[in-house]
Amino acid sequence: MKEYAIGVDFGGTNTKVGLVHKSGRVLMETAFPTAESPKPPAFAQRVAREISKLVVDGAIEVGQVAGAGIGVPGLVDNVHGVIHSVTNVPGWNKLDAGSLFEKHWKLPVCVENDVNAMALGEYRDGAARGFANVVCVTLGTGVGGGLIIEHKLYHGATLTAGEIGHIVVESHGPLCGCGMRGCLEAFIGTKGLLSRAKALLKKNRGGVLHRWLDEGLVLTPHLLARAAHRRDKAALQVWDEAARYLGRVFGGLANFLNPDIFVVGGGISAAGGFFLNKVRSVAKQYAMSVPGKKLKIVRSGLGNRAGIMGAASLVFDRHGIASEA
Amino acid sequence: MKEYAIGVDFGGTNTKVGLVHKSGRVLMETAFPTAESPKPPAFAQRVAREISKLVVDGAIEVGQVAGAGIGVPGLVDNVHGVIHSVTNVPGWNKLDAGSLFEKHWKLPVCVENDVNAMALGEYRDGAARGFANVVCVTLGTGVGGGLIIEHKLYHGATLTAGEIGHIVVESHGPLCGCGMRGCLEAFIGTKGLLSRAKALLKKNRGGVLHRWLDEGLVLTPHLLARAAHRRDKAALQVWDEAARYLGRVFGGLANFLNPDIFVVGGGISAAGGFFLNKVRSVAKQYAMSVPGKKLKIVRSGLGNRAGIMGAASLVFDRHGIASEA
Repeated sequence: MKEYAIGVDFGGTNTKVGLVHKSGRVLMETAFPTAESPKPPAFAQRVAREISKLVVDGAIEVGQVAGAGIGVPGLVDNVHGVIHSVTNVPGWNKLDAGSLFEKHWKLPVCVENDVNAMALGEYRDGAARGFANVVCVTLGTGVGGGLIIEHKLYHGATLTAGEIGHIVVESHGPLCGCGMRGCLEAFIGTKGLLSRAKALLKKNRGGVLHRWLDEGLVLTPHLLARAAHRRDKAALQVWDEAARYLGRVFGGLANFLNPDIFVVGGGISAAGGFFLNKVRSVAKQYAMSVPGKKLKIVRSGLGNRAGIMGAASLVFDRHGIASEA
Repeated sequence: MKEYAIGVDFGGTNTKVGLVHKSGRVLMETAFPTAESPKPPAFAQRVAREISKLVVDGAIEVGQVAGAGIGVPGLVDNVHGVIHSVTNVPGWNKLDAGSLFEKHWKLPVCVENDVNAMALGEYRDGAARGFANVVCVTLGTGVGGGLIIEHKLYHGATLTAGEIGHIVVESHGPLCGCGMRGCLEAFIGTKGLLSRAKALLKKNRGGVLHRWLDEGLVLTPHLLARAAHRRDKAALQVWDEAARYLGRVFGGLANFLNPDIFVVGGGISAAGGFFLNKVRSVAKQYAMSVPGKKLKIVRSGLGNRAGIMGAASLVFDRHGIASEA
């Protein structure tokens, strides 16, 4: 019985590889800095070595592994296994990644956008289990999204559905990495959060955040979250504004797409309950009464294993392998 | 063979009833002012009489009619055939309409929100034929939407999906009929268009629109469209602003939902090509490059028969009756 899958979480910084049971349990995992083998053939070989080790260390047979899934932070044609581009990692343009990986990994391979893979993972084993229609959003450097519609991963006309980060929320807002102005990501992605914090700190020199930065700490979303917990005025305002933008988009999508649940993951979502609570109350305010009453916004159930589990879930999903024994 | 269906287009002003062939052809149609029989039992009886006439006049047997579909401008639970409320028609609250209509019409009945029915009609016989993922929008007094996803009418968690008109586009915008501020509908619904025109006319007294109103013509979206064709400055600005709001929402949804096509119907969409052209160019500007390249925004293919054909298509869809002979 093929009860296992390999999940590969291709990250801009680290790539994680895990051996996952169909129940969603991660048996073993390993990681390497992506920059050590950033080009496709070297990357494929490196992952192949990690897979071999996992199978040996996990004391299972290769025959028990149904396949490998990989979540890629970029533009992916999942149907043909083609990677069009990887955000922040050059050398991955218009690549037949499916064939390359299958050659090296000697397993059937599913190639998918990373947030799509995470959405499937949350649907299969995480916070969205059992819900037909799911919007999964990751907050980090980028703001990504993945959609489950009627119990299936949804891709859309150009296989690029889910790009919630590039919904424009202020026509004359700051320039986004994508070239447009005022995208949600330009406000609540890491860069947007930090530059807003810097602007507010100029007017707000008395708080704990300002002191920490004077003491040499580096401004990160994590530090911003810590400062907010200490009631730092500038930090609280940054999170409040971010929650308002996200909440407003969620409220509009509750009306338009009317999903059963919104799942929020990624580093920034770890900011704490106060952020997600604010997102919830703003979303309810922008949702109509009927969809608003059933509006659910929850934190990722898979946390930092979402990447590996999501990638593995692509394999279980494709091969019709259910979670239950 | 059951090759026919009855389509009922329940309108705030007129209710239309049509006999429709599975090919999408409307064989016969009739209409009555809804206010003549506005309460449920009288309405059901009146429609029953119209159905009988259509069957007789169409020279077909009742046995050839697969059922009746009705599109309702309001909140509908299509699964249970329940009408929660009808916009602008009192007396239709929490009504088991499916049972009432089946009793009077002596046919299997599908009850659906009117824009959802139109979306299905456009997908089956109109501008969206053959497309897997469709956003259908109607512009009129209200701004409604219906979604086809993966070739099926999509309803969402509370069966209210598609409410594109109540996506908030300006937090501090004008009050909308729904109670929120700055909804898309508050800007591009009839009321929003006309009040914007009035405001602009105060500053713009030299144009043809101002003269027409002085001559006693009534300000309507249709008059606004005629004035725009005559290059009236105020009218052009009203349409330009409306197109910007709609285009921006479409651009964001092209990124997020990535549909194959947007279909625009309803009275206001008849404003002319200049309006839809502007919507297209603004939407492209707000869409990312990949979904933007394939962005399709077209006018309704069914026009003023969309209501009847959409309602009839519910019946063909439920009974698996294909368009082709």
